[in-house]
Amino acid sequence: MTTTGKQLFTTLESDGTLTVALEDVDFPDPTGDQVLVRMEAAPINPSDLAILTGAADLENAQYEPGKYVATMPEPFNSGSKARHGLKLPAGNEGAGTVVATGDTDAAKALMGQRVACVPGNAYSQYCIARASMCLPLGDYTAEEGASGFVNPMTALGFAENAKMDGQDAILHTVGASNLGQMLTRICKEDGLGLVNIVRKQEQADLLGQIGADHVVNSSDDDFMKQLRAAIDDTGAFYGFDPIGGGKTVDSVFKAMEQVAVGHMTEYSRYGSNQQKRMFIYGRLDTGPTVLSPSYGFGWTLSGWLLFPFLQSVGQDTVNRMRKRVLDSLTTTFASTYKKRVDLEEMLTKEAVTDYRAMRTGEKYLVTPWK
Amino acid sequence: MTTTGKQLFTTLESDGTLTVALEDVDFPDPTGDQVLVRMEAAPINPSDLAILTGAADLENAQYEPGKYVATMPEPFNSGSKARHGLKLPAGNEGAGTVVATGDTDAAKALMGQRVACVPGNAYSQYCIARASMCLPLGDYTAEEGASGFVNPMTALGFAENAKMDGQDAILHTVGASNLGQMLTRICKEDGLGLVNIVRKQEQADLLGQIGADHVVNSSDDDFMKQLRAAIDDTGAFYGFDPIGGGKTVDSVFKAMEQVAVGHMTEYSRYGSNQQKRMFIYGRLDTGPTVLSPSYGFGWTLSGWLLFPFLQSVGQDTVNRMRKRVLDSLTTTFASTYKKRVDLEEMLTKEAVTDYRAMRTGEKYLVTPWK
Repeated sequence: MTTTGKQLFTTLESDGTLTVALEDVDFPDPTGDQVLVRMEAAPINPSDLAILTGAADLENAQYEPGKYVATMPEPFNSGSKARHGLKLPAGNEGAGTVVATGDTDAAKALMGQRVACVPGNAYSQYCIARASMCLPLGDYTAEEGASGFVNPMTALGFAENAKMDGQDAILHTVGASNLGQMLTRICKEDGLGLVNIVRKQEQADLLGQIGADHVVNSSDDDFMKQLRAAIDDTGAFYGFDPIGGGKTVDSVFKAMEQVAVGHMTEYSRYGSNQQKRMFIYGRLDTGPTVLSPSYGFGWTLSGWLLFPFLQSVGQDTVNRMRKRVLDSLTTTFASTYKKRVDLEEMLTKEAVTDYRAMRTGEKYLVTPWK
Repeated sequence: MTTTGKQLFTTLESDGTLTVALEDVDFPDPTGDQVLVRMEAAPINPSDLAILTGAADLENAQYEPGKYVATMPEPFNSGSKARHGLKLPAGNEGAGTVVATGDTDAAKALMGQRVACVPGNAYSQYCIARASMCLPLGDYTAEEGASGFVNPMTALGFAENAKMDGQDAILHTVGASNLGQMLTRICKEDGLGLVNIVRKQEQADLLGQIGADHVVNSSDDDFMKQLRAAIDDTGAFYGFDPIGGGKTVDSVFKAMEQVAVGHMTEYSRYGSNQQKRMFIYGRLDTGPTVLSPSYGFGWTLSGWLLFPFLQSVGQDTVNRMRKRVLDSLTTTFASTYKKRVDLEEMLTKEAVTDYRAMRTGEKYLVTPWK
């Protein structure tokens, strides 16, 4: 017996033609540790957009019900060579109800339950997911649980990573994002210092309301001075950045080094001995990262991704993190949505161009059965 | 009793005026663990040039015997704010004869011996050095021992760092440099794979003569193809770069990722899981480092400096490394010089403009008593 439902696929051809379309798919019966989830809610996160739309020209795309065809400009098309011709599913995470299971005890125990899961094809009416990766939601709704993995585990991951590295303060370059708000609450709970960078006064106000102590506004004339003061107050020489391109990380390293040099009693041609550490975990700006030679050699910059991090820390830590998320799903780890769309609506020009803009606080939720 | 001798100082004023000049200095009697070394030979390394000349306009400088005055252009002058008004010595390392000592046993044992040392003011007729940091040269000449610290310990440091990090191959972006040649011999001796990047065919030939297996020429049309093949052959996803500015590191990360993606059986939007690691240990190019978003998130880039590295590994490892250098000072760790200059000659326009160019294989040696 198979279950049939609509699923979204995104296909980039070598000539740069991007087709994002719904198809009717036959979902097989789950086996072993698998469960079949009837998906009720799935968020559109920035990490989903990379594959869903990328840098495609959405203004001039051809839209029809359940489908659009756009052109991927250079250099992004050549840069995506590895996916040329592949029909890919999309949607990292979501929540729904388990309607069939494989025959392991773990799988069978989930029958009929509402779960959050990370299937990788969440923009779909049904998904096959691994029982061991499902989080039973209990009394939470599917909407409350839909964003229960990517942002909460990433924000918690930053705090875990910082503590592992002996840090007691973090810097975050996009403080007012959904993830940034979670991080603010986590740091408050855990007694970690936090420097939040925002771009607008209303974002600073928002973070102030949830208890952020150090918010600096990059639009202010004295931004660098504010940033140095906040780093000096907290000791945050360790931070996370989802922008990637441009000079954000460079400005942060500069401010960190200036703070450290300010505490030196003797000049060194090599700069301070203060280790400065930044992680890029997203590409809101797809331009190149530019690092100026103005903070010596005591710095390290890495890419950061959730799944490799979770693999590196081991299952016990992951379980502890997931339990913490579940316990505070509608408080510390709450997500808010600008709009709910079904699978057809998410492929309209109005929706696509709006969620691709990735404006702070304007996340979309896909509700396949609405 | 004091000893008098000439010493070089470099002073940058806030208005960008750089004065490099000899002065007569009274050297105090050494005390405790100190020794007084009559300096006989000191190399001009790229790491010395940062403070000696920096980016100063040497073409239009005013030269007189034992002195020149040049202008430091922007943004380099503002970037050097921390040293404005400071009269700094220069010359990391050198070799000479111990002519007076403090009263510790270690210091007294060095009396009359020829030693290599790292005083930080090696462009001088005399230096005060710590006995514990002096390397007795035995039958080696001062010239043979003059470059016995910075390049040998850095090249060995790369191999040590790679092994600590579980690597069995290294990539080096300036293969034909003095340091690159040492690294080639070290990797050969230690059974480490090595990918050497060079800019010219004669540099490739030179490295071939000393046994390098993988040399790729960045001037060749198929450079990236050569680079991928060499990385694939050696498994070198770990490398060192003294250029710093521009796109060298970016090209290396790209090639590493392309090799890793070539071995993947399934497409991932996040790129490969292969960790890619590069270290910038110099600034031959003082422009910004440019990193394109084309190799996923599995990469780390750090600054790398010899002294912090040596501090991190501990004295036993440092002693083992120094013994290895001493044992092979004229073979594995041999340095060659284009020219010998005394303290006056090193401040002439002809010399300054020549050694500041930092051309591969054209190192200068300062011989203060010649």
